[in-house]
Amino acid sequence: MRIATFSHGSQTLYGAITDKGAIALSPHFRQWPSLREVIEAGALYDLCLAAGEHPVTHPKGTFDYAPPIPNPEKIICVGVNFPDRNAEYRDGSAQPAHMSLFPRFPRSFTGHDRPLIRPPESHMLDYEGELAVVIGRGGRRIRAQDAYDHIAALTICNEGTIRDWVRHAKFNVTQGKNWDNSGAMGPWLVPFTAPAQIDAARITTRVNGEVRQDDAVANMLFPVRQQIAYISTFTTLVPGDIIVTGTPTGAGARLDPPQFLAPGDVVEIEITGIGTLRNTVEDEA
Amino acid sequence: MRIATFSHGSQTLYGAITDKGAIALSPHFRQWPSLREVIEAGALYDLCLAAGEHPVTHPKGTFDYAPPIPNPEKIICVGVNFPDRNAEYRDGSAQPAHMSLFPRFPRSFTGHDRPLIRPPESHMLDYEGELAVVIGRGGRRIRAQDAYDHIAALTICNEGTIRDWVRHAKFNVTQGKNWDNSGAMGPWLVPFTAPAQIDAARITTRVNGEVRQDDAVANMLFPVRQQIAYISTFTTLVPGDIIVTGTPTGAGARLDPPQFLAPGDVVEIEITGIGTLRNTVEDEA
Repeated sequence: MRIATFSHGSQTLYGAITDKGAIALSPHFRQWPSLREVIEAGALYDLCLAAGEHPVTHPKGTFDYAPPIPNPEKIICVGVNFPDRNAEYRDGSAQPAHMSLFPRFPRSFTGHDRPLIRPPESHMLDYEGELAVVIGRGGRRIRAQDAYDHIAALTICNEGTIRDWVRHAKFNVTQGKNWDNSGAMGPWLVPFTAPAQIDAARITTRVNGEVRQDDAVANMLFPVRQQIAYISTFTTLVPGDIIVTGTPTGAGARLDPPQFLAPGDVVEIEITGIGTLRNTVEDEA
Repeated sequence: MRIATFSHGSQTLYGAITDKGAIALSPHFRQWPSLREVIEAGALYDLCLAAGEHPVTHPKGTFDYAPPIPNPEKIICVGVNFPDRNAEYRDGSAQPAHMSLFPRFPRSFTGHDRPLIRPPESHMLDYEGELAVVIGRGGRRIRAQDAYDHIAALTICNEGTIRDWVRHAKFNVTQGKNWDNSGAMGPWLVPFTAPAQIDAARITTRVNGEVRQDDAVANMLFPVRQQIAYISTFTTLVPGDIIVTGTPTGAGARLDPPQFLAPGDVVEIEITGIGTLRNTVEDEA
């Protein structure tokens, strides 16, 4: 089952996605203005049931995808989280004891099939294919062994980065990771019901059809369970929060010579059991 | 004029603060659920006018202060922004070319006169007194010379930090800067009407009456105008966004020996023309 947020003209809707198009369900669930409230109510399954009772309302090509959760309280990304990725930094350091974390603002992401925006200030726009987990049941100091009970759904993230701005400052990557519409999230949420959806998943990133990143989620240095445990040590996780769990080796900046994204490029990130997040690239108007 | 968000029992209200107590104004402005919407509507001045027409509704001691903007889209903090502060890091590096930025989540802040919470995981809770500016008119690529036209109000921030967790990871300070209720914001907003409110202001931090930080805002390495220009280069600023503009030298971690906050301590941060943000410290229950 695929649950998406999408727009049609000036309307923003949520609903189920089928091969023929979208079944708008938000008009039937006015008590929940967005998928964040659906998840807070523990009602993703209700949407799945309702999808079976309604026809396609928006055929393919008549709507635009938006990031699935338009207004999460927080989006936290995990950095340098695959073997070889730490080595890519070539600074001779051993594997760190703790994960690197940085927040992104929702407006840094666009939806599936929408263009990533390359700004005039830098042409070093780079892709990072990642699994994103959406918190269902909130909590503080969640134990790693209970962590999966707190995940409502999975989606895909292109954690698009303006590479030179990541290194602008002495500490922190904030300004390289938060350009408006420099990344993407989607296409949809897939309800999380079985550990294998994470544990057996593979992330594959293609640029213009060429495989650039390809690794198993199981190879993460800091697995998803540990991420939820560590993050919830300091901040209360709430329904709709998104953790972007880290990218495999092979970002464009690390190729020799580096290959950044340019207008006309097509980036596809495929994750087993979720689907493919596809984005084009455009220069900012 | 002082405009605050406060709670009384389970009610959250906003209104004006006088020496005798609070004048609840939110019941008269139901079109604006919080001060974020008031600011979005450009209506802080309307509140000031209304305050003159209503009596004190909540005498001193009958309400609790909350952070003035309870739900900003983003809170962005500027790091290492006073001379001597860069030197405090003692890493031999020259002044950086760009400012260091990191986001904080709203739940990392409590209100005026509420306790900062020291967690069991670390006793290295530290204060950082800072001026916080609240964006009124949003924008992208705001010019430094126009930056002040985009500020609606000022407030005070104790950018409380769990010092050892700031250095947990290879990059980024996220996990040391985002402990629930580790910092504070308030007591209130003061509408921004004249450049001197920033340019001539002084930040003074006292712990149990002893001055620990004391510097002029004019000494910032990256002034407020430049902060707004730089941040709005990559992200669209929107009404209610908060920029926490950097702390003077003298945080507890840099004293010899370091002096962290402990239960019973009282931290006061005074900024010219705004007031004094006062917080106690408690161990997490």
